[in-house]
Amino acid sequence: MSSRLAPVLADSVRLGDDGVHVLDRRVFPFEHRWVHARTVEEVARAVEEMVTQSSGPYFAVLWGLVLAAREADGDDPQVARERVGAAARRLIATRPTNDQPRKAAAFVLEAIAEREDVAAAALEGARAGDADYRRRCREMGRAGAALLGHGARVLTHCWGDLYLLGLVEALLEQGKAPEFVCTETRPYLQGARLTAESLAEMGVPTTLVTDAMPASLMREGRVDALVTASDRVTLDGSVVNKVGTLQLAVAARAFGVPFHALCHAPDPHAREGAQVPIEFRDGREVLHTLGRRSASEKVSGLYPAFDVTDPQWVSTVVTDRGAFSPAEVHRYWS
Amino acid sequence: MSSRLAPVLADSVRLGDDGVHVLDRRVFPFEHRWVHARTVEEVARAVEEMVTQSSGPYFAVLWGLVLAAREADGDDPQVARERVGAAARRLIATRPTNDQPRKAAAFVLEAIAEREDVAAAALEGARAGDADYRRRCREMGRAGAALLGHGARVLTHCWGDLYLLGLVEALLEQGKAPEFVCTETRPYLQGARLTAESLAEMGVPTTLVTDAMPASLMREGRVDALVTASDRVTLDGSVVNKVGTLQLAVAARAFGVPFHALCHAPDPHAREGAQVPIEFRDGREVLHTLGRRSASEKVSGLYPAFDVTDPQWVSTVVTDRGAFSPAEVHRYWS
Repeated sequence: MSSRLAPVLADSVRLGDDGVHVLDRRVFPFEHRWVHARTVEEVARAVEEMVTQSSGPYFAVLWGLVLAAREADGDDPQVARERVGAAARRLIATRPTNDQPRKAAAFVLEAIAEREDVAAAALEGARAGDADYRRRCREMGRAGAALLGHGARVLTHCWGDLYLLGLVEALLEQGKAPEFVCTETRPYLQGARLTAESLAEMGVPTTLVTDAMPASLMREGRVDALVTASDRVTLDGSVVNKVGTLQLAVAARAFGVPFHALCHAPDPHAREGAQVPIEFRDGREVLHTLGRRSASEKVSGLYPAFDVTDPQWVSTVVTDRGAFSPAEVHRYWS
Repeated sequence: MSSRLAPVLADSVRLGDDGVHVLDRRVFPFEHRWVHARTVEEVARAVEEMVTQSSGPYFAVLWGLVLAAREADGDDPQVARERVGAAARRLIATRPTNDQPRKAAAFVLEAIAEREDVAAAALEGARAGDADYRRRCREMGRAGAALLGHGARVLTHCWGDLYLLGLVEALLEQGKAPEFVCTETRPYLQGARLTAESLAEMGVPTTLVTDAMPASLMREGRVDALVTASDRVTLDGSVVNKVGTLQLAVAARAFGVPFHALCHAPDPHAREGAQVPIEFRDGREVLHTLGRRSASEKVSGLYPAFDVTDPQWVSTVVTDRGAFSPAEVHRYWS
């Protein structure tokens, strides 16, 4: 991504000599505050506490495992590799629904498998994982852009992070002048604070709406496509993503708007949506906005953080090997 | 409604000797603050500024016109009637989508039409309008309750006010032990602050979710019916209500959940949804939550306050003369 276009969030989890620095998305864009995680455990907690999310945990796992390898410096290589393996399990367990942290860990674990210099090998593996993720986002972005016409009005939900940026970069490179509508995405307001902000940084015309409004805009013919990232796509073409994706996909179908889900690759180990664990976060998060209560103590909240959009509501799964219909997405692996 | 069950919001616009007192729903339930409107213009501004909404403007028009008649006390009766008529036009113009303020005005205007004692007649008309509205809510509530089974899990959106309370009262009287799921209803959070609060005051088990979550719950079979109030129902069975109703109705249809819309009576003057003016409020309201910014200055918002749910997505229109299919609702008037 050229520096002219890169928004702040395109590089928001960084390795330093003193640990991992994670841009705090809970207060972005109102503050640019970085959380300094000195240990693997601090990296894991930063992910659990939503300091970063979307693509963020992938990078947090990469750099967190470099920290783990550094912590094990001086250990017998076999012991060091075991310590990195334990760190990988800890980091992967932070968020159960997305399958990217597992891939991040695989880069590092494969890199250190046969090596005596575990710390150096871990760094090489993490850098390869970083480059691979960004390359896949660019390729997937180009495949997605090919599905959209000039001036397309794209509705998106939550914050697709580098997936979405890959798409937008490709649209801009192709001179397609897209416009976006973002849902604010309660309770964390990722759409309001991350997506709309990043698109504005890239100079893309963007309108923010509440999570309840998109069907109304679709009925009026004001949306050409629904495009979201995904936390996981299963081999039957089910799309697991931020809660609310299903509701938008159903509305899109009702009003003749295609739904394209971005995904580097379907999960070869998950046959169908029901196999993906859905993370339930603390229901009290629904009772608050930006740290302030939005309902009284009398009320209880429920917070399924993700939902499953069955293949019947999905038009296209856009991967780094091109676009597939949901029924064909298993062929990614053949 | 028995006092045991009556929540605070059941009586939140009151006539006093010194003007109209309006419970400020913008800060409820965190504060119980009353706005004192001394003049018709202050009543109109309170409605425009969302001090009250849903059923509130109906009562604000009733009592505001009593203020207008008092202000004209001493005028020639013909002049007084004209002044009340001008006040009615001002008050009706405050919110264009809902048709109840027009009916409230009609009660007072008819009551004063032939009378010399305009102030006394206006008070009689307003009291009749108050009683009529509450009676219709009870009758509509009983018709709605007949559609729901024991232990029904009801999803609702925004704040249905006395319409919803009429339904809940009937369900409780019939021993049906309902449970509710409320959407929080951004940007004003009426669901979180008004609906969930009032249902909790009535002892009804209630779960709060964000506006994006209902389809996910419906897919899991956790909702038996979607029930909302309506700002207007047109003769073709279109339901005009808080923005987001359409999105929920479409999802309900997709997952086999019936959508029952509460409405005293369809508007005999509106043939179809396209004839109802949709109020667009300031888009900046979408960029704020509880008075605090939720997106940066870079971002612009859009706020259509209502949407039209076409009859194909509506199962039943529940009126004070019973339940109608959307295709038959015009027969209310025959």
